[in-house]
Amino acid sequence: MPDDGPTLPDLERVTAHIDDHFDTHLAMAQEWVRQRSVSADGIGIVEMAELVLGGIESLGGHGEIVPTKGHPVVFGEVDVGAPRTLLVYCLYDVQPVEGEDWISPPFDAAIVDLPDVGPSVIGRGIMNSKGPLAGLIAAAQSLQAVTGSLPVNLKFAIEGEEELGSPHYAEFVQGHRAQLQADAALFPFYSQDSAGKVLMYLGVKGMLFLELIARGGDWGGPATRAVHGMNAGWFHSPAWALVQALSTMLSTDQRRILVDGLYDQVAPATREDRDLLRHLGTSFSVETQLREAGVSRFKHDLPPAELLETFLFEPGLNIDGMVAGHHGEGMKTVLPHEARAKIDVRLVPGMDPDVTARQIRDHLDQHGFGHVALHQIAAYPGSKGSASDRANAPLLEIYRSSGVDLEVWPLVSGSAPLYVFTQTLGIPLAIGGLGHGGRQHAPNEYATVEGMRLFEHSMAAYLQRLANS
Amino acid sequence: MPDDGPTLPDLERVTAHIDDHFDTHLAMAQEWVRQRSVSADGIGIVEMAELVLGGIESLGGHGEIVPTKGHPVVFGEVDVGAPRTLLVYCLYDVQPVEGEDWISPPFDAAIVDLPDVGPSVIGRGIMNSKGPLAGLIAAAQSLQAVTGSLPVNLKFAIEGEEELGSPHYAEFVQGHRAQLQADAALFPFYSQDSAGKVLMYLGVKGMLFLELIARGGDWGGPATRAVHGMNAGWFHSPAWALVQALSTMLSTDQRRILVDGLYDQVAPATREDRDLLRHLGTSFSVETQLREAGVSRFKHDLPPAELLETFLFEPGLNIDGMVAGHHGEGMKTVLPHEARAKIDVRLVPGMDPDVTARQIRDHLDQHGFGHVALHQIAAYPGSKGSASDRANAPLLEIYRSSGVDLEVWPLVSGSAPLYVFTQTLGIPLAIGGLGHGGRQHAPNEYATVEGMRLFEHSMAAYLQRLANS
Repeated sequence: MPDDGPTLPDLERVTAHIDDHFDTHLAMAQEWVRQRSVSADGIGIVEMAELVLGGIESLGGHGEIVPTKGHPVVFGEVDVGAPRTLLVYCLYDVQPVEGEDWISPPFDAAIVDLPDVGPSVIGRGIMNSKGPLAGLIAAAQSLQAVTGSLPVNLKFAIEGEEELGSPHYAEFVQGHRAQLQADAALFPFYSQDSAGKVLMYLGVKGMLFLELIARGGDWGGPATRAVHGMNAGWFHSPAWALVQALSTMLSTDQRRILVDGLYDQVAPATREDRDLLRHLGTSFSVETQLREAGVSRFKHDLPPAELLETFLFEPGLNIDGMVAGHHGEGMKTVLPHEARAKIDVRLVPGMDPDVTARQIRDHLDQHGFGHVALHQIAAYPGSKGSASDRANAPLLEIYRSSGVDLEVWPLVSGSAPLYVFTQTLGIPLAIGGLGHGGRQHAPNEYATVEGMRLFEHSMAAYLQRLANS
Repeated sequence: MPDDGPTLPDLERVTAHIDDHFDTHLAMAQEWVRQRSVSADGIGIVEMAELVLGGIESLGGHGEIVPTKGHPVVFGEVDVGAPRTLLVYCLYDVQPVEGEDWISPPFDAAIVDLPDVGPSVIGRGIMNSKGPLAGLIAAAQSLQAVTGSLPVNLKFAIEGEEELGSPHYAEFVQGHRAQLQADAALFPFYSQDSAGKVLMYLGVKGMLFLELIARGGDWGGPATRAVHGMNAGWFHSPAWALVQALSTMLSTDQRRILVDGLYDQVAPATREDRDLLRHLGTSFSVETQLREAGVSRFKHDLPPAELLETFLFEPGLNIDGMVAGHHGEGMKTVLPHEARAKIDVRLVPGMDPDVTARQIRDHLDQHGFGHVALHQIAAYPGSKGSASDRANAPLLEIYRSSGVDLEVWPLVSGSAPLYVFTQTLGIPLAIGGLGHGGRQHAPNEYATVEGMRLFEHSMAAYLQRLANS
């Protein structure tokens, strides 16, 4: 028999239980960080999937590690017979750390007292997204301990390839439509900035991740091995071809992508988006953004609301990395036979990744770079929800009732394959929770200990509000 | 008392002695290759200098390992009281091998039967230039063994930083002008192509080796660490700045350097140069050049003599390497805070490296890339001799009397700091010897065993002809 969910006094007892057991909860998140699971090399991926499954089973749920063509998905279910069901989306993989300089080893999960933000767990994945996932499970454990049950049924569909661009997650969702049905979906996340303000995002961008490879061939240049650099006078260079090809794709001021037709797909911001942006423009801290990134100025010299509209509703083209020839110490005069660049396009509402990829291919061909190969590594569209949908409304209520500063963003610039929920499954999705962390995808990724505690409070409250919605 | 040098019957006995002892001679060259001496990392440099000094001492000479601000110069002298003195220039350092795929380990110096060219020593430095230096010393050993002496006095000034752009050799020469005086200078080299034709070079190009570094700063972009790639929409990218800066420097067809004033310094080919080029145009094998490099076509669609004039008397601009951000396997969406490219300009007659470097700096500034730093790693002008000078005339006679096919090039596209002989010391310099090798600065550098034997014959003959000149 379903019960009516915990009462408010229950919730106070739950948060007290969380606080009393927080050392244990924190230790679970640290253990998860210490279990490396860089999806790019696959080391520890299976062990990490087992840890996540163990977390689900700790709630009395059952689950399985579902194979895909890549790393498996952890699917699990805690059916308490409640009227409402929440589907939890998250990832158990993390970004690589190669070439990064960390103040504490990335897989130690040490607690370091950071300037400005205080005691924090330092580690790859603590923010994105092992900390939030472990915290949600820990909050549910406290709910169960205090109330004897959960206010909603939980489903988990936790992937191990998000940092690779989720190449097999959509196929998993397609193949498990029935099992994944739910009333709402949640992607748990530390949503507070370093000043404590909550940043709530109603949508995410899509992702097109490509590799450009220039290699010698019929068009010219050495095809199979590097040659002596003295040959640059009469042999074509794949490295120059790559540089020239890339340079045609973005304006010199880096503000405009020069690929024909690319902006045609872009859906302009709606009236609701612009209302949110106008509101955001009054509270959005330009200085905080720049300081946290270590950047002196933005590309665009615009008032905040317009800066945000440009940032969120226009696609960006990034060089994630490139390599050719001799790039170590000292001098080596070679003409490399191959040069590579990894680029990504952040897809805004309206953009179809396949169309964009084709436009980039056409652009290269039309500019005389037919010999520069283009490999598609990841491609998915964005996803956008509403402040009033069943997933987002309860979260917004929690933020408002907690008294924190709040910014509601129609879209975030980050990418995640959330379209599989909102589009494929037709389930509204929320992203968030209290808590603060930073430097995801960069050295010294962190989450504050205090934020991790507040995150658990907010998750317990979210499950209750969802039950009552 | 000086003697009159060996007679022709003596020389026949010397070549017979070389042949009889060739296994031992070959073993010395292999031993030298096995002693790594990559100047870029410095490992084994001192040990290699000692091997070279040992070679000089094996001729009854004396010498010393002269410190410089970088790797030392091996200076040695074998004074037999002859009227003529030859100064031997060579290098004991080698190029790095990082990231290269070899059919036999680069420091094994194994003998492999190569398609087309036959049994060859495979190893880093066997061609450039441990094989030739060891072979010259071995030939002198045979001369001594047969005739009891040498026909000329020998001086050696062997550097350990040629592959770094010879940053300290000019200073060494300036400081040892008196000790380095000689009648002629020789840079020993395997001059035959894979078909057996001798390629004789009367000059070399100069070198300007630069590193471009784009880093975030006041102009924009992350200055101290990479940030998440999603920020490309509003933060400048150092990687894009590097790509855009580079792309302004060379025409899209890769034929013309677009740096203002750079061609103004270039001295056009002389009438003598053009006569040599016209002659070369009749024998120069376009197909051999392309085949040996694994390249399908040249940049320029020109008749051979004009192709050669373009190649030799116009500067080339090469990208030796570049690196930024994530360039390993998989996907990592970062906006790198730094991007680097190593480039070189091959300086032709008339070009002053300092002027060229200044023009490139001005070019970057004028194109809005004042924030892209330029570091000078190596800079020296070219050097050009004549077929009739005291160093080249005897070598030309040997080639002609040996009956091999011969091409005389007014200039080679490779670079070496030979201006210190022809300009600083005022000594004519020859580059050459019989023998065949290839793939210097590239995987599977090799020299044929048969060519190494013929090289020694040619060196014994050269010392004799120089004595009689």
